[in-house]
Amino acid sequence: QVTVMGLVDTYAGSMRNAGDANSRASVNSGGLTTSWIGFKGTEDLGGGLKANFLLTSFFQADTGVQGRFPGDTMWSRDAVVGLSGGFGSISFGRELAPHFLPTILFNPFGDSYTFSPLNLHNDVPLFNASGWSNSVAGDTGWSNSIRYTTPDFGGLKANLHYQLGEQAGKTGVNNIGANALYFNGPLALTAYYNTVEVNNPLNTAGSSVGFGASRQKAWMFGGSYDLKAAKLFATYGQTSHNVDLDDKTLSLGATVPMGAGKIMAAWAQTKREGTVIGADQTRKTASVGYDYDMSKRTDLYAVYMNDRITGTNNGNSFGVGIRHRF
Amino acid sequence: QVTVMGLVDTYAGSMRNAGDANSRASVNSGGLTTSWIGFKGTEDLGGGLKANFLLTSFFQADTGVQGRFPGDTMWSRDAVVGLSGGFGSISFGRELAPHFLPTILFNPFGDSYTFSPLNLHNDVPLFNASGWSNSVAGDTGWSNSIRYTTPDFGGLKANLHYQLGEQAGKTGVNNIGANALYFNGPLALTAYYNTVEVNNPLNTAGSSVGFGASRQKAWMFGGSYDLKAAKLFATYGQTSHNVDLDDKTLSLGATVPMGAGKIMAAWAQTKREGTVIGADQTRKTASVGYDYDMSKRTDLYAVYMNDRITGTNNGNSFGVGIRHRF
Amino acid sequence: QVTVMGLVDTYAGSMRNAGDANSRASVNSGGLTTSWIGFKGTEDLGGGLKANFLLTSFFQADTGVQGRFPGDTMWSRDAVVGLSGGFGSISFGRELAPHFLPTILFNPFGDSYTFSPLNLHNDVPLFNASGWSNSVAGDTGWSNSIRYTTPDFGGLKANLHYQLGEQAGKTGVNNIGANALYFNGPLALTAYYNTVEVNNPLNTAGSSVGFGASRQKAWMFGGSYDLKAAKLFATYGQTSHNVDLDDKTLSLGATVPMGAGKIMAAWAQTKREGTVIGADQTRKTASVGYDYDMSKRTDLYAVYMNDRITGTNNGNSFGVGIRHRF
Repeated sequence: QVTVMGLVDTYAGSMRNAGDANSRASVNSGGLTTSWIGFKGTEDLGGGLKANFLLTSFFQADTGVQGRFPGDTMWSRDAVVGLSGGFGSISFGRELAPHFLPTILFNPFGDSYTFSPLNLHNDVPLFNASGWSNSVAGDTGWSNSIRYTTPDFGGLKANLHYQLGEQAGKTGVNNIGANALYFNGPLALTAYYNTVEVNNPLNTAGSSVGFGASRQKAWMFGGSYDLKAAKLFATYGQTSHNVDLDDKTLSLGATVPMGAGKIMAAWAQTKREGTVIGADQTRKTASVGYDYDMSKRTDLYAVYMNDRITGTNNGNSFGVGIRHRF
Repeated sequence: QVTVMGLVDTYAGSMRNAGDANSRASVNSGGLTTSWIGFKGTEDLGGGLKANFLLTSFFQADTGVQGRFPGDTMWSRDAVVGLSGGFGSISFGRELAPHFLPTILFNPFGDSYTFSPLNLHNDVPLFNASGWSNSVAGDTGWSNSIRYTTPDFGGLKANLHYQLGEQAGKTGVNNIGANALYFNGPLALTAYYNTVEVNNPLNTAGSSVGFGASRQKAWMFGGSYDLKAAKLFATYGQTSHNVDLDDKTLSLGATVPMGAGKIMAAWAQTKREGTVIGADQTRKTASVGYDYDMSKRTDLYAVYMNDRITGTNNGNSFGVGIRHRF
Repeated sequence: QVTVMGLVDTYAGSMRNAGDANSRASVNSGGLTTSWIGFKGTEDLGGGLKANFLLTSFFQADTGVQGRFPGDTMWSRDAVVGLSGGFGSISFGRELAPHFLPTILFNPFGDSYTFSPLNLHNDVPLFNASGWSNSVAGDTGWSNSIRYTTPDFGGLKANLHYQLGEQAGKTGVNNIGANALYFNGPLALTAYYNTVEVNNPLNTAGSSVGFGASRQKAWMFGGSYDLKAAKLFATYGQTSHNVDLDDKTLSLGATVPMGAGKIMAAWAQTKREGTVIGADQTRKTASVGYDYDMSKRTDLYAVYMNDRITGTNNGNSFGVGIRHRF
């Protein structure tokens, strides 16, 4: 059987990132989670072996636009088929990049690409006066890829990701990466490393992975600890390129249960250095919000964010929204 | 649970609108209703409160093209999440424009954007020698919007619609409107009013809402009465702009039950005046057809239409089709 | 009720068609069947009459791209509504071209547009130094069409296809075709004929159907015989144009059951002659593979292919993949 599933997240607010000249009063999509719809299924092949598929599509719930940005593919969230069993799982197609789970599971705003400071620094370019481009190359999903996931070893799991560059006569141009995730009671730890030479969701042969570089290396460590009264989060990561440019990103955060919901607070700082950009840049972003659970599937939220980048306008944003899973 | 639903409507015919140089023999989509597919779901939150989502997409069943026209968005029919309860309902995202329900519920051809004279005048531009552009600006759906629907007061319901223009530093550019719908036995009445400054489904900052104007005001009254032997329909509406241009649209129609179906007849006249277009224009369109119900979900139809605009070729169209709801 | 269904087929391999300068290491979609997802439903209208719809969409499971190629429509696989009963069935919209079933049912690699020599010659243009364009014009699906399918007469069925060109004032520009399919125990036979003047999925008025021609005629005969130890396949077909160009295509193949799967071997040769291309061209393609059924819904496959065209590089390709139906 096929399961139809997805999530609609829409918020109203006043948005201004660092570098924006003005605020923009908006009804937007994806305050806490990027809206999506999709299909999945599993077939039992016997002997503990299963065949699985997953086909999911992002959309913008404010305008009905398909995808996250112009040029995004229809099934960019996942387009994958594979096998799972005692050996772990192997899958083929378009799926999560190595840095995705370590990033979203180790910050208080989860998979928010609107209000999570860490996600904003890593994955969201700003098309404004700040000229900020995302720290981590290669998108949150990798096309043309093969992924192997280990079995769970006492709370520890690892993923190996390999994306073929698909350039005729150049088998050496690829993306490769790995991550590890460890969950044990209140403690969780993560790490990832990857080398990116190919853009996503669609690559053009010979194109840069950012700043004129043809290769980026990135890694990050992260941890969280649940004290019950509060859950604490921290990550530290770096990127480097085959041109002179390095990013160092530190993020800290906490969630505090309150009523039928939780307070969320997060801060991230990215220092960008290298002759490619001239003077050093620092971006500091802080968000604080409250997420109220109406049910397991539906929550209401309110978030305030302050965003600063060296040498450009500060921005303050505020949004109130509803997220509904189906 | 998610419900998958939609409608496929395809017809074969010879089509010629006013201003077309020739007839076009065609297999087309959407003779009586624009074809669409989508997903909906409702979650009971307790205390009479519900969370709802609706995600629906137009398509052209003759070619498989997504959307109603080039540039239409994937989920342009509805992309909405909201809450409903004793207070009525509130929703966010992309959804019906204020003039949609008053227009389609008060003419004999319903939501036909091919054969309903009223809908053709209001919403369908003709890209031919007539140069006819739709009377009512802002599309049949509004993006980036918030809608509040009142509870039902003895057959009376009202909708308030507000679309944010989302222009940085210009919070004053928006769409706003309201409609009312009253149903009581054989009698039904409606009215709407709206001001449109923003195009849909996607707006470009500073673009015209038609005829070089940056703002259009539109209103309409309508009524229907079911005499059993026939149901009668009438509407009257006007549009005005912040340039010298006004449209006045009168529509009259009737449906007459016959056999397992009904005869449909409708006529609309739009008078367009203003220095912007030079000489006054009048468009007169009349359609007559028969709609045969094979079941509650599937019907067959045949429609003849005559379309005239001052100073250009007349057009006669004829189509025979099938509409299937799922 | 609506059924959600589809297929994900992804393979990893090294691909090089005739005329390619180099091999390309790839994770690609559609090794044995083009990946797709869609929706169908049937309504019982009583008296043996049914209303049916089918709405299906191709996608590329490696990147998540919608469609088979740039410019493909969202629902290009099928976008159809119709009626079926004792009279056979009639349907309207976008659906199979006349040559589709005779071609895919009478070669060992079925509906593979990656590894079936017959399908490659007929339907897949090569955008490389070979300049090879598909032999059969008009795509594997026809838009704006009406199809009538006869009842089954002792194993024999026929389909009549008519696609309106939809050119204003030119009712004579159309596609028209028919096929017949006969199944009787181990023996199966087929034939098709069509005249194509209109491209798909979207036509531009006055465009060529290939090689500067405005009309192509194509026909093919095919047969298969199941000896149990092996199943044999053969087809022979020709295309001609209203310019001086003719293709003659012969294909031979066999499948041999082995273990929980089958060996597949196929060969096709197309001779292309005419003043339009100058010197004659011959393309010869051979594929051999093994398809292992993990279940009725999921199979694994490995295929090797050699592809040659007069006067250009040979190409050898190899792929290993998984196909999962849902």
